[in-house]
Amino acid sequence: MLQHLPEPVDVFAWIDEAEGARERAGLVRTLRPRPASSPLLDLASNDYLGLSRHPEVVAGAVRAAERWGGGATGSRLVTGTTELHATLERELAAFCGFEAALVLSSGYAANLAAVTALSGRGTLVVSDAGNHASIVDGCRLSRADVGVIAHGDVDAARKTLAGHEGRALLVSDSVFSVDGDAAPLAGYAAACRDEGAALVVDDAHGLGVLGEGGRGALHATGLAGAPGVVATMTLSKSLGSQGGAVLGPAKVIRHLVNTARTFIFDTGLAPAATGAALAGLRLLAREPERAARAREVAALLYGRLTASGLTAARPDAAVVSVRAPSASAALRWAADCREAGLSVGCFRPPSVPDGISRLRLTARADLTGDEISRAVAVILRTAPAGATDH
Amino acid sequence: MLQHLPEPVDVFAWIDEAEGARERAGLVRTLRPRPASSPLLDLASNDYLGLSRHPEVVAGAVRAAERWGGGATGSRLVTGTTELHATLERELAAFCGFEAALVLSSGYAANLAAVTALSGRGTLVVSDAGNHASIVDGCRLSRADVGVIAHGDVDAARKTLAGHEGRALLVSDSVFSVDGDAAPLAGYAAACRDEGAALVVDDAHGLGVLGEGGRGALHATGLAGAPGVVATMTLSKSLGSQGGAVLGPAKVIRHLVNTARTFIFDTGLAPAATGAALAGLRLLAREPERAARAREVAALLYGRLTASGLTAARPDAAVVSVRAPSASAALRWAADCREAGLSVGCFRPPSVPDGISRLRLTARADLTGDEISRAVAVILRTAPAGATDH
Ligand SMILES: Cc1ncc(COP(=O)(O)O)c(C=O)c1O
Ligand SMILES: Cc1ncc(COP(=O)(O)O)c(C=O)c1O
Repeated sequence: MLQHLPEPVDVFAWIDEAEGARERAGLVRTLRPRPASSPLLDLASNDYLGLSRHPEVVAGAVRAAERWGGGATGSRLVTGTTELHATLERELAAFCGFEAALVLSSGYAANLAAVTALSGRGTLVVSDAGNHASIVDGCRLSRADVGVIAHGDVDAARKTLAGHEGRALLVSDSVFSVDGDAAPLAGYAAACRDEGAALVVDDAHGLGVLGEGGRGALHATGLAGAPGVVATMTLSKSLGSQGGAVLGPAKVIRHLVNTARTFIFDTGLAPAATGAALAGLRLLAREPERAARAREVAALLYGRLTASGLTAARPDAAVVSVRAPSASAALRWAADCREAGLSVGCFRPPSVPDGISRLRLTARADLTGDEISRAVAVILRTAPAGATDH
Repeated sequence: MLQHLPEPVDVFAWIDEAEGARERAGLVRTLRPRPASSPLLDLASNDYLGLSRHPEVVAGAVRAAERWGGGATGSRLVTGTTELHATLERELAAFCGFEAALVLSSGYAANLAAVTALSGRGTLVVSDAGNHASIVDGCRLSRADVGVIAHGDVDAARKTLAGHEGRALLVSDSVFSVDGDAAPLAGYAAACRDEGAALVVDDAHGLGVLGEGGRGALHATGLAGAPGVVATMTLSKSLGSQGGAVLGPAKVIRHLVNTARTFIFDTGLAPAATGAALAGLRLLAREPERAARAREVAALLYGRLTASGLTAARPDAAVVSVRAPSASAALRWAADCREAGLSVGCFRPPSVPDGISRLRLTARADLTGDEISRAVAVILRTAPAGATDH
């Protein structure tokens, strides 16, 4: 007698449906591996100061790998802390004007660490609606009461904080990655001061671009080193490397060492990344004009694109965000730019909180005048109908 | 008239209390940066195969930094994907027996990605009580119904899965980092097959140690490449680098590319780390005996320590976990070992789910017989009263 064996079910059949829906909506993302030397003009990366390929940054990575090996070999609480990590922490804290710093494996991990370790059950976390995914995930992991306020709304921050007894935290990006606009840090800080709340600011897009010599948005606002203020950063944008950091009062850093899960249960940042970031930081300290140049390039791009009728947000740092009429138009626009030798970012749902698709241009400090002209010409030539206001 | 200004409140005053409590409990953790060449014999790192300092792994990091720069410069969906990432993904998937792979910035990020992208509201995630913090955080972020089952309890897994309609996922470490014991993968897989659930296994401590030539725990159990099975890994232990990966059916990987927040909103793994991991993988493929040797060293350590009366869990991979009578005794024991030239791990609350403190020894494949003897002698000589059973 034949036994009827059940057909094995495909437990991932639901993915087929999700894929189909993405395809119908024109929202499929695929990876496009790039070669080591691309002929494209890069206005898509977050390498704001052009340091990722700088010989000193590369040498920093090389020397560190040769001296310390390929990996950190363990959690920083076990074997994963080297003198190289300690040096980077000391110099980064000093440069940005904070008492102490802690290096983690990514900016994502740094945000998860800061938000969770400084909140917890019964506390309040007030979060700007435009915050980065890693802050949102930090809020979700925090077990705190989370109050999401409208983007940049200082009054809402103040009101939400005032309605809470006990510990509270306000968390915001310094520069928002989608539109490149700055947070009202002075207003947020005043609300925190008045309501006895801590302020956590993610300066991923401010470090290396804003403040004196690129010391960041908090330094620019006179908030660096203030007792109730904590900064998070990534080492992967202006510093041309990988990794993240939390900066703040020494006791906050000690508290993270003892309690932050993405610090304790994660392997330390690889020596090469640590060495590259340190080299990038020293370069920035020696050549402070790089920061101003990144802002200048952003202003040039913005000025010329909007003068030609494109709609863009006025850049507060080095991100210039140009509106596209639709997700599919944005995708085609970016593809046409690429075809014409220009690499630009393309932000579409679900990566844009407001549903508006954009070309996202990054103003690298090392773009020449000619390159800027070429980029502007390509963007204008490939602009879809509906991209210019009438 | 003098105006009375309020004393500025210290918004982090609560940290002083938390610090005091930690001090009274003897649970303060501090960072101890190590020099580039330590005189200590290392039984504390997760560098299971001794590859982190291997000249080929270092050369892999160096060449990648020279060729591709200090950082990936963006999300892998923008500029952060290189041909180097694609090569590592292809070779890692092929080596471990899976259709496809995706490289992320850490094993932590890989677990967050896999657990969240494959679950979601209305789904069930069944999680082993001994799972790593990154899996626990993935569960917390998932918005799924989470059922935590007793450590290694296949019946409980089956019952919990059977009680749920709709999509479900069982997630487990392959080898648990605290005690070094293996999960009942065959039993978990059978439960998933019978109940139509997916199986996600974190092979952080299995890759390079278990299975034919170190192909990992899933390969060893005949589960690699099975349609309902997904593996997560770290590149920071056996491969001597940094980073993480998810391995599984190609459509699962495509789904992660499109939906996993720690992939989409995170900078790509740095070239140096990618190159180091690739070199480590190729070394492992060429020298499969390294995996067997790591297991042999673990068996030697376990045999000799327990023969002398210490209590340890029988190692299923390369972690040998020796029980200590208390947190403070464990701390002193580890310090005494260090004093005697031996670096060992020390696990104390809150890093141990069962509250039992341990010395944690890692059996590196490149330990010599002499080094093993020296390590055993030091551990026995420094053992606290109460560490040996009577
Ligand atoms: C505002 C912001 N915060 C945090 C991150 C995460 O940093 P990392 O890529 O180092 O994880 C990013 C981008 O990657 C970001 O744009
Ligand atoms: C079981 C397990 N999973 C995941 C991780 C995280 O990997 P990574 O350090 O690459 O973030 C670790 C340790 O670090 C681990 O032990």
